[in-house]
Amino acid sequence: MPNFQAKVFVSLRPSVLDPAGEAAKSAATRLGLQGITSIRIGKAIELNISAPSEEEARNTVETISDRLLANPVIENWSFDLNQIDPSIPGKNL
Amino acid sequence: MPNFQAKVFVSLRPSVLDPAGEAAKSAATRLGLQGITSIRIGKAIELNISAPSEEEARNTVETISDRLLANPVIENWSFDLNQIDPSIPGKNL
Repeated sequence: MPNFQAKVFVSLRPSVLDPAGEAAKSAATRLGLQGITSIRIGKAIELNISAPSEEEARNTVETISDRLLANPVIENWSFDLNQIDPSIPGKNL
Repeated sequence: MPNFQAKVFVSLRPSVLDPAGEAAKSAATRLGLQGITSIRIGKAIELNISAPSEEEARNTVETISDRLLANPVIENWSFDLNQIDPSIPGKNL
């Protein structure tokens, strides 16, 4: 069974306030760092999946992102998907 | 002053256990998702910086990553840096 690696990026929607980012920004100022105009903190999730095809791996990542890793009300998500062991045919031939 | 955008990725070192990732993995199984062999949860931080040069922006990102955004004892960090408004010369000419 082919193995895939997905990187899922979850970020707050632009309209949503980011208190953690604001806190990090004021801490950076206290550290004496200049010029930082905004900080937005999100999640970067790395998934290893074995699936019969790339399409099935993609479906799994979409489902887990939408139902578990992100809160669709306040967060956006996107992902990259790569097959790890190209020797095994995972593409939809 | 030129504007730059950095994306900092913070992830747990491979040797460090990831309880949140393990919890997400068992939740995914309960959701009926098959084939997920591992989940590692990290941070993706977006920074907007205005700095006189790319080099200064790079120094700021390195300092904030090392001293604020990541815990070097258990986490690794990496980042991408791009100038947002290439019209203003920010490169070291």
